[in-house]
Amino acid sequence: RRRGIPEAILAEGKTPAEVAALATTALDTTGRALVTRADEATAAAVASAVGDVGPDATVERDDRIGTVVAHAADFELPSLDAAVAVVAAGTADAPVAGEAAVVAREIGATVDRIDDVGVANLDRIVDQADRVREADAVVVAAGREGALPTVVAGLVDAPVIALPVSTGYGVGGEGVAALEGALQSCSVLTTVNVDAGFVAGAQAGLIARAVDAARAE
Amino acid sequence: RRRGIPEAILAEGKTPAEVAALATTALDTTGRALVTRADEATAAAVASAVGDVGPDATVERDDRIGTVVAHAADFELPSLDAAVAVVAAGTADAPVAGEAAVVAREIGATVDRIDDVGVANLDRIVDQADRVREADAVVVAAGREGALPTVVAGLVDAPVIALPVSTGYGVGGEGVAALEGALQSCSVLTTVNVDAGFVAGAQAGLIARAVDAARAE
Amino acid sequence: RRRGIPEAILAEGKTPAEVAALATTALDTTGRALVTRADEATAAAVASAVGDVGPDATVERDDRIGTVVAHAADFELPSLDAAVAVVAAGTADAPVAGEAAVVAREIGATVDRIDDVGVANLDRIVDQADRVREADAVVVAAGREGALPTVVAGLVDAPVIALPVSTGYGVGGEGVAALEGALQSCSVLTTVNVDAGFVAGAQAGLIARAVDAARAE
Amino acid sequence: RRRGIPEAILAEGKTPAEVAALATTALDTTGRALVTRADEATAAAVASAVGDVGPDATVERDDRIGTVVAHAADFELPSLDAAVAVVAAGTADAPVAGEAAVVAREIGATVDRIDDVGVANLDRIVDQADRVREADAVVVAAGREGALPTVVAGLVDAPVIALPVSTGYGVGGEGVAALEGALQSCSVLTTVNVDAGFVAGAQAGLIARAVDAARAE
Amino acid sequence: RRRGIPEAILAEGKTPAEVAALATTALDTTGRALVTRADEATAAAVASAVGDVGPDATVERDDRIGTVVAHAADFELPSLDAAVAVVAAGTADAPVAGEAAVVAREIGATVDRIDDVGVANLDRIVDQADRVREADAVVVAAGREGALPTVVAGLVDAPVIALPVSTGYGVGGEGVAALEGALQSCSVLTTVNVDAGFVAGAQAGLIARAVDAARAE
Amino acid sequence: RRRGIPEAILAEGKTPAEVAALATTALDTTGRALVTRADEATAAAVASAVGDVGPDATVERDDRIGTVVAHAADFELPSLDAAVAVVAAGTADAPVAGEAAVVAREIGATVDRIDDVGVANLDRIVDQADRVREADAVVVAAGREGALPTVVAGLVDAPVIALPVSTGYGVGGEGVAALEGALQSCSVLTTVNVDAGFVAGAQAGLIARAVDAARAE
Amino acid sequence: RRRGIPEAILAEGKTPAEVAALATTALDTTGRALVTRADEATAAAVASAVGDVGPDATVERDDRIGTVVAHAADFELPSLDAAVAVVAAGTADAPVAGEAAVVAREIGATVDRIDDVGVANLDRIVDQADRVREADAVVVAAGREGALPTVVAGLVDAPVIALPVSTGYGVGGEGVAALEGALQSCSVLTTVNVDAGFVAGAQAGLIARAVDAARAE
Amino acid sequence: RRRGIPEAILAEGKTPAEVAALATTALDTTGRALVTRADEATAAAVASAVGDVGPDATVERDDRIGTVVAHAADFELPSLDAAVAVVAAGTADAPVAGEAAVVAREIGATVDRIDDVGVANLDRIVDQADRVREADAVVVAAGREGALPTVVAGLVDAPVIALPVSTGYGVGGEGVAALEGALQSCSVLTTVNVDAGFVAGAQAGLIARAVDAARAE
Ligand SMILES: Nc1ncnc2c1ncn2[C@@H]1O[C@H](COP(=O)(O)O)[C@@H](O)[C@H]1O
Ligand SMILES: Nc1ncnc2c1ncn2[C@@H]1O[C@H](COP(=O)(O)O)[C@@H](O)[C@H]1O
Ligand SMILES: Nc1ncnc2c1ncn2[C@@H]1O[C@H](COP(=O)(O)O)[C@@H](O)[C@H]1O
Ligand SMILES: Nc1ncnc2c1ncn2[C@@H]1O[C@H](COP(=O)(O)O)[C@@H](O)[C@H]1O
Ligand SMILES: [Mg+2]
Ligand SMILES: [Mg+2]
Ligand SMILES: [Mg+2]
Ligand SMILES: [Mg+2]
Ligand SMILES: [Mg+2]
Ligand SMILES: [Mg+2]
Ligand SMILES: [Mg+2]
Ligand SMILES: [Mg+2]
Repeated sequence: RRRGIPEAILAEGKTPAEVAALATTALDTTGRALVTRADEATAAAVASAVGDVGPDATVERDDRIGTVVAHAADFELPSLDAAVAVVAAGTADAPVAGEAAVVAREIGATVDRIDDVGVANLDRIVDQADRVREADAVVVAAGREGALPTVVAGLVDAPVIALPVSTGYGVGGEGVAALEGALQSCSVLTTVNVDAGFVAGAQAGLIARAVDAARAE
Repeated sequence: RRRGIPEAILAEGKTPAEVAALATTALDTTGRALVTRADEATAAAVASAVGDVGPDATVERDDRIGTVVAHAADFELPSLDAAVAVVAAGTADAPVAGEAAVVAREIGATVDRIDDVGVANLDRIVDQADRVREADAVVVAAGREGALPTVVAGLVDAPVIALPVSTGYGVGGEGVAALEGALQSCSVLTTVNVDAGFVAGAQAGLIARAVDAARAE
Repeated sequence: RRRGIPEAILAEGKTPAEVAALATTALDTTGRALVTRADEATAAAVASAVGDVGPDATVERDDRIGTVVAHAADFELPSLDAAVAVVAAGTADAPVAGEAAVVAREIGATVDRIDDVGVANLDRIVDQADRVREADAVVVAAGREGALPTVVAGLVDAPVIALPVSTGYGVGGEGVAALEGALQSCSVLTTVNVDAGFVAGAQAGLIARAVDAARAE
Repeated sequence: RRRGIPEAILAEGKTPAEVAALATTALDTTGRALVTRADEATAAAVASAVGDVGPDATVERDDRIGTVVAHAADFELPSLDAAVAVVAAGTADAPVAGEAAVVAREIGATVDRIDDVGVANLDRIVDQADRVREADAVVVAAGREGALPTVVAGLVDAPVIALPVSTGYGVGGEGVAALEGALQSCSVLTTVNVDAGFVAGAQAGLIARAVDAARAE
Repeated sequence: RRRGIPEAILAEGKTPAEVAALATTALDTTGRALVTRADEATAAAVASAVGDVGPDATVERDDRIGTVVAHAADFELPSLDAAVAVVAAGTADAPVAGEAAVVAREIGATVDRIDDVGVANLDRIVDQADRVREADAVVVAAGREGALPTVVAGLVDAPVIALPVSTGYGVGGEGVAALEGALQSCSVLTTVNVDAGFVAGAQAGLIARAVDAARAE
Repeated sequence: RRRGIPEAILAEGKTPAEVAALATTALDTTGRALVTRADEATAAAVASAVGDVGPDATVERDDRIGTVVAHAADFELPSLDAAVAVVAAGTADAPVAGEAAVVAREIGATVDRIDDVGVANLDRIVDQADRVREADAVVVAAGREGALPTVVAGLVDAPVIALPVSTGYGVGGEGVAALEGALQSCSVLTTVNVDAGFVAGAQAGLIARAVDAARAE
Repeated sequence: RRRGIPEAILAEGKTPAEVAALATTALDTTGRALVTRADEATAAAVASAVGDVGPDATVERDDRIGTVVAHAADFELPSLDAAVAVVAAGTADAPVAGEAAVVAREIGATVDRIDDVGVANLDRIVDQADRVREADAVVVAAGREGALPTVVAGLVDAPVIALPVSTGYGVGGEGVAALEGALQSCSVLTTVNVDAGFVAGAQAGLIARAVDAARAE
Repeated sequence: RRRGIPEAILAEGKTPAEVAALATTALDTTGRALVTRADEATAAAVASAVGDVGPDATVERDDRIGTVVAHAADFELPSLDAAVAVVAAGTADAPVAGEAAVVAREIGATVDRIDDVGVANLDRIVDQADRVREADAVVVAAGREGALPTVVAGLVDAPVIALPVSTGYGVGGEGVAALEGALQSCSVLTTVNVDAGFVAGAQAGLIARAVDAARAE
């Protein structure tokens, strides 16, 4: 019972060979593999192992984000009639937001990325509000003081998921202030742990699945 | 733009008179008032103030939960074609779960309460799994080690929202271990802060609204 | 060398009699006394002691804020040609903001209070931006996730001082998330400790004094 | 008075040469040496030093776990009539669980390893419950939210020792949530510190010794 | 499956009437009830309710410890052929140690209490070492710096369970230093949370049950 | 609306090429670029990229501080009629103080650096008091116990900004005690986060701008 | 072996009757009793119990400090040829400093109290430096940012003991910043826990005893 | 006013060349230099620089401890008639204890090192008690649970200074439990920060100086 969430392999703490082995197994058994937090060596090892196994499998690497997605030749990506917006405050938040976007897309949602709309310059997010309102679920990635999820949840009707990012130094740094800000938000929203892009994207995808199923009824 | 979430007044840190005044204003302007974390004196003050304003308004107090809900005579509770399950691990978790249930119900969801299914006795939650699977969104309230949300999210397809409860003494007590357990969960779920029943219920209600709207399309 | 800051007596941890004695001494020696964080009994004791000492002294109590200000008959409040804005996010932030306002006013600044402009409803603060821009220094009081100081510092040119307020329960509650948010802010601002209205108001007053002196050159 | 617990040398913070010297001394004086948390260089140094000292000594390295066990030719491993189960939630928990298993085995217990039974997939642990019930003492290794020890202690009669593992990132990561979960458990169990496989295995071994002695009476 | 551990009702956070109701139910269904952390009003309510239900039931209150134990007329306390020592460092540690002792006794162990043997005066614990060595499992209660469990585990062969006590003020106070000391101990031992006498006593009782069963084989 | 604060690029977490690209863009669009926390490779990459773009641009590197400042040929540094003092306790505090000084200077203030006046030797700061009193705003950098900002704020009339520095090991190390000391100061001052030289210098610059504007009226 | 330190009874967590009993026992067996942290009821109970036992015993209560000292008629206070200075930063620090002074005096040292010399007004402590230099050991009590011990240790040759006091609110409050400041001090000094006047005074007394014995050689 | 404490240069965070320069300056101006926490490269640089300056200077390196001591040819080490004992629990505690010993010796005390007397094996410290009792001041270095300082202070009359050592992993690791244990000790003692061997040795040296001066009177 995986709820449509792809089998994901967290590369950290494993050797490239171990990750490649786990990925090919996932590919064989589920038609798909998703590797997260891979460095370049690991991503290369996965890509090569997948190529060896079946030349018809497709592999997509994003080295900035650290993800590798492999699909068997006959794998059919689900296509949900539901949209997820992934909003990011600053450049440093983009990779974590990207991980969320990949997962939501793999679950089948239409994903819209909206970057660089931090609250120190309010016009930017206000200008994008209508675009965010198109989505059935919204992920908002922000580090440091993490004010953006609160502001977005004040602008849209859809459920908002905060995704705190491990930026910032000193007290409250490494995403701690951003996480606590989500927990204390004056707006209604739920949160995941610092840098947990996979979880945020998956939860948004689960909401998209529920909406898609309801639309199909 | 309140997203269908009732105007809620957090009673803590306010005098009974202040809360009563805010509640009657909310009742006047929105047809409804929801007071949370009220002690008995505050609840009584609200009930009496509401009675004074309009004899046709209805008032519902739950002193164990600390909520007061008032509806104007002509207020029509929205009725969503969507269900929320509110699951609680132990007796001590029931009031916080109750706050979530009240909010979800006020947003218009059908709410199903499932109590006393803590993981120290696995059969209980396994026996209730099919009932939980009926819901479009699930809130899981648990204190102390907070293992229940992880277990429930492994059993159902719908989005799960952890609601950590401030039980437990010593290190990790007052809900801290339960919150950290939600943030570290091996299952996909999002969380709210310790005891934030209002937020958990409101987020579940927002998902129910999205599903209801999709069903209506 | 008190920098124009009134001699302030922190009432917490002292008996009403002790505070009253310290206040009358301050009144005698400096022509003024400022008591902070006084409960009603202490405020009453101070008011009565001041009345006994000299019937011409004026006393101003604000029991919600917990401050008592006494001026000797011949005390002349400095009048600076400089303004301080004191902005507060929600009702719960008002008393702490009020403490800051009293101090800034006693230093001689013109004080403008702007309340109830929390970021969950962006229009409110945007609508007040021009008013805030009139000030030479800005204090921004906010609890819970404390996003308002970051937003205000993105809207004005004057120096902004964050004043975190001890609201919010659970992890990051009691003003901790708000303080960490100020320390992590993406905008340029400095901060004081949680609930330190006295310090925020005094620092804003020092800036107003510097500006006033420069205007007078 | 070592209670049958092997003299253990913690390799961290020592040079390979220092560890090798300590190990040969232990081998000489007690007939046995147990090195923990050794990297490959250290393990090699120990193996080689032991070989030099006495060609009849046996050496067993497990480089994934980081342990080296050496026995003098005439060393007789105690054989207790008592069993210890070592249960692990996920792959990342296996090395720490392995350290516990080595120690329990060196104390003389029969050790049964049960891997990959994390609670996100309940069937796995439920299916293994009878096997765990064979043991006289149970060690349960789990990281992240650490729910497994609580679930296991609800399924068996023997004493359960939680062994939190330093997995997980963000707040509550590095085993902190797992340790706090053990301290807050709704089931009866005791715990050791994060990654303290040696201590968990030794305590389980002490219980096995007590049971073995009782069986022998 | 309660492993011989009495059904325990944690009185904190429940009204006297609620606790009394839970206790009479436990008495009815299991022949026994154990209430922990009861204040005097709650203990009285329980005693009276038990008396009402069946005049033949026995009730034992210890108001210093906060426990109430009720046995149905026909309840037969198990009698294990195994002993538990409960050692306490100072007077302030006695009530928490007492909770552990009550639980171990209810499980059926012979319990030996050894008080006032804190390490600031080493002779005391050294003088009692032989007595502690009689036990099959040892609980050691200590607050402040919590050095006693480490010292005791260096003196005996049986498994030792540390029971940190919430004494001490300032940094590391309220039992935190004692708990961390147990987690960092140079001796082999496991620990429970601060003040968790119930858990420590129950775990010691489970070991006693295992030893008793082995003796009976 | 940048309040006269230079566009600053935080080099940490970016490649030399990325930083160089951002710097040349800033130089092109605003006539100036300020890079902070750059290592030597990054500083060199920026210097070389700026040289390539326009040979008339000036570049100033301070490798100890980690800053690079580039001005377009036609960039005119604002020249405020206002002074900022940057005071540092010890040698280890100098680089962070230097970052503050660079920013204040770029905003246009006259900057006076006063080093090596830690409180363990009181004469030093007392001897420099008159020099500090010349400034319109004062930044005080100090690590470890961070006592210097409190002492300086007791000696001068101008607003003081504490700049805690990440020195010190053990509990309260890495600048935590210094930050908490600023938050708890008995003198009136505001603070920035640990090592946030940029923010402290920018806030001092904003005060200098306000004073300069008032002088110009 | 009590090192000349009076038998001290910490009143917190004991009933007045219990403390009175312990005090009369100490008086009987050692000729002296010292009760710390007693509230008025406890102090009265002790005074009355001592009076009952022997009318010739002397009792000295200091209700602000919370200490009660009783001497048997024939008890002879040791008189050391050595002095202890007890320095306090502000009024709020006086009671804790007083506890230290009582203990040092009971050990036999000549005690000099120097109050109200906080560093926000440097002249005060500088003016008293020669007086502090008379002492053989120095206790320095300070709360909030706790800068005074560092400054004093820079002014005198004798060993300095920091005594952090639980003043201050918000982050670093309740004496935490003061304790961390002592641990991070740039001057040489040792520290006790927050509010541990007894320990600071006793350690100063032990140094005085050593100096006295050396003088007597 | 350096109180006889040698000018010490903390090598961490400085280049070998910088440390060497500071050391030669100290040697020139005070006849002595003490470098702490130096790695091998730094120690070599210092030794070589000192050799260059004056061939008659003596240099003593201890690379395990990380200290370098240089004396000018005509430097005369003070010789106090007073002794300091430096006691260490385990091998990992020896280097930090060594740093304390070097400083105490440089101040002029006779230093006695007593190693490997951890409390898990009580006989060892009890056997050495008389030797420790010879000292006028005692430093006790211990990591992990840090029980040794409490035990030693129960055995001797002289003032005891706890020196927590940064050993131990998991919660309370890196010396935190040891420091908190010192702060919570049931015996009278004062403490320094984790690994602060320099401070502990210097404070013991100051006590030795006081005793020596008293002996000379
Ligand atoms: N129990 C609660 N927990 C968290 N947030 C709440 C709660 N009750 C109300 N709120 C939120 O807090 C806002 C009101 O805060 P206040 O203005 O202080 O009454 C409401 O608009 C709700 O969004
Ligand atoms: N509410 C407050 N928060 C922080 N500091 C304060 C406050 N009120 C007074 N103070 C400062 O604390 C000093 C007085 O402390 P005390 O001697 O304890 O009354 C005053 O000189 C003020 O600088
Ligand atoms: N003093 C105690 N400390 C920790 N756990 C306890 C204590 N007393 C009872 N328990 C456990 O908590 C469970 C009951 O919790 P509750 O349902 O809240 O009464 C019991 O089954 C016990 O396992
Ligand atoms: N105010 C105090 N702070 C810290 N320790 C104290 C204090 N008063 C007494 N003590 C110590 O605590 C021991 C007594 O603790 P107790 O047995 O709980 O009364 C005494 O022997 C003293 O060493
Ligand atoms: Mg951000
Ligand atoms: Mg639970
Ligand atoms: Mg707010
Ligand atoms: Mg796990
Ligand atoms: Mg103790
Ligand atoms: Mg400093
Ligand atoms: Mg102070
Ligand atoms: Mg130790």
